[in-house]
Amino acid sequence: MTVEATTRMSQEIAEQPDALRATFDVLLPRRGEIRERLAGRRHVLFAARGSSDNAAIYGRYLLETHAGIPAGLVSPSVATHYRSHLDLSDAVVVAVSQSGRTREIVETLAWARDCGAVTVAVSNDESSDLATSSDLALTTVAGTELAVPATKSYLTQVAAMTVLGTALGPDDTALDVALADVPGQVEAVLADADRLEPVVAQLADGLTVVTGRGLLMGTALEIALKLEETCARPVRGYSYADLRHGPISAVQEGVTAVLVGAADGPLHDAMIELADDLRTRGATTVAVGGSPELSEACDLATGPLAVTERLAPLVAVVPMQVVIERLARRLGLDPDEPAGLSKVTRTDVSTQEEA
Amino acid sequence: MTVEATTRMSQEIAEQPDALRATFDVLLPRRGEIRERLAGRRHVLFAARGSSDNAAIYGRYLLETHAGIPAGLVSPSVATHYRSHLDLSDAVVVAVSQSGRTREIVETLAWARDCGAVTVAVSNDESSDLATSSDLALTTVAGTELAVPATKSYLTQVAAMTVLGTALGPDDTALDVALADVPGQVEAVLADADRLEPVVAQLADGLTVVTGRGLLMGTALEIALKLEETCARPVRGYSYADLRHGPISAVQEGVTAVLVGAADGPLHDAMIELADDLRTRGATTVAVGGSPELSEACDLATGPLAVTERLAPLVAVVPMQVVIERLARRLGLDPDEPAGLSKVTRTDVSTQEEA
Repeated sequence: MTVEATTRMSQEIAEQPDALRATFDVLLPRRGEIRERLAGRRHVLFAARGSSDNAAIYGRYLLETHAGIPAGLVSPSVATHYRSHLDLSDAVVVAVSQSGRTREIVETLAWARDCGAVTVAVSNDESSDLATSSDLALTTVAGTELAVPATKSYLTQVAAMTVLGTALGPDDTALDVALADVPGQVEAVLADADRLEPVVAQLADGLTVVTGRGLLMGTALEIALKLEETCARPVRGYSYADLRHGPISAVQEGVTAVLVGAADGPLHDAMIELADDLRTRGATTVAVGGSPELSEACDLATGPLAVTERLAPLVAVVPMQVVIERLARRLGLDPDEPAGLSKVTRTDVSTQEEA
Repeated sequence: MTVEATTRMSQEIAEQPDALRATFDVLLPRRGEIRERLAGRRHVLFAARGSSDNAAIYGRYLLETHAGIPAGLVSPSVATHYRSHLDLSDAVVVAVSQSGRTREIVETLAWARDCGAVTVAVSNDESSDLATSSDLALTTVAGTELAVPATKSYLTQVAAMTVLGTALGPDDTALDVALADVPGQVEAVLADADRLEPVVAQLADGLTVVTGRGLLMGTALEIALKLEETCARPVRGYSYADLRHGPISAVQEGVTAVLVGAADGPLHDAMIELADDLRTRGATTVAVGGSPELSEACDLATGPLAVTERLAPLVAVVPMQVVIERLARRLGLDPDEPAGLSKVTRTDVSTQEEA
């Protein structure tokens, strides 16, 4: 199979700095409105699937660690199949779906409203059912995404999570200054992509394990999902703690362990200790993002990133998007149209909608 | 390597009917006390790792679908590393740990109390730190567990979840009658274990995918975890929806798909449709529990179980415990002491405690 060197996926990866700028330009000025509309609610729950769920996991940690608001994930089946009535009159439910037309997520948001929740829709289409039926629509500005693997739509969902978390958290000028730098940092990652070739080569064989923790856990799960779907590679994504709690025993020579870290934060040292432990077990380790120390502790690295942990999910996924797109082509696969996948997602027989 | 045909794991699997009876005898009479102690709290959050987390996932669904109480899972790192202060004065936090001495979980429960939560400890040791520091200790009666893979301790944790969910739910005489039958149903599963040999043989090769949904999702994840840890097999556990949302594209000939189902409930038909879909993709399908129709829809089956969905997690895991113990021996592994695992669980360097 011949695959064009310039895929739609690679173009959409390259469009991310502009997509981030456009999304922040629209959503950051709305933080006061968000704060007012959600005032008095004590819990935030997210409803999402797939990549959108990985963005929501970051949103959950940001709300708990930065804004001090208990947050969690809704199980859509409780809404769509069990049809349980829960008292959500003290809660906000945030539905995340690129198309805003995933039937299961639209139904879950309608159920949440019936249960008393204030509803928020994060989608890439302001005219979607999800957006128009919500109390508050936070619409990303990713533009049309044609490749099946979500890249710019995912990253702008992450940006919407940052807006939500900072809207509900304390004023933090230093964080806002750092936020303004993020699109430029994504550009810098994309400017020197050939340095990632050794990582592409390493991921071509054997089992890959991807792990991250806390604010970076969603990023690790997103990298694992994309590797599996786009490159058809055997890969497992674990939270740091789940890996530690058992599956680490299966790590041995021939396994590649991808560690997604941040430059700072309370989990920084634990990730370096994990890298040492995984190397001792025989794994080849790959640092994604994180501090220079994390890169040094690993066999390979995508390059350290000087971005604070709360914003790291906006940048750390990007080098691995590039790696995954290149790896797919190296394996003779078409990254734009992975076998068996399409933009049409089917959770149930009655549910055939774009994700 | 020679492995004794009678392992500690097989003995502990066989002790489960008695362990269940003893646990229900102690905990069921306390449902009034549980209801009183937790009155007025609007949310229930679980804190757990590994197998205990799989029991908690059932607890979460039972609370939402049977008791109508919003429930979720705490991220321990928010407590132990980020040290966020969350307002949990409207919440119950339930910590689940067999030993009651997993440092991370003990710390998370202390943090929850500081945040205003009413705290519940589900452990197998009434003198453990977790039990003695909680507002309400629900102690299982599994006896000492020597094999590293948790079987009877896991199943009695599931029983504690049933007690909690029915204590906070509506009076339901039919459900209580069904509950009294459960230990006998587990006995029946264990009485005819040789019929499981074709399933043991099928799981010896290739990639295994395990899936379940709603009340049975935790059971599916527990089966996947045990297969991975005890048999060192390549296995992935997915919620039904996560599987549908992408990874199903990697299912092909040579993959074994294990479907964990219930005899009834709103997800019954969807599991049968999933079985058809997985077979069409070339997978060999194995029904675990579920209705006769689910068994018929699959290539192999551990046998249908006539137990209602809300109680199915108390029985459906058992045939697969037997399969996993037999598969380990067939592969020349010692199920009592899987390579690289011990009862000492280490989530962090500073945390070396029994799980």
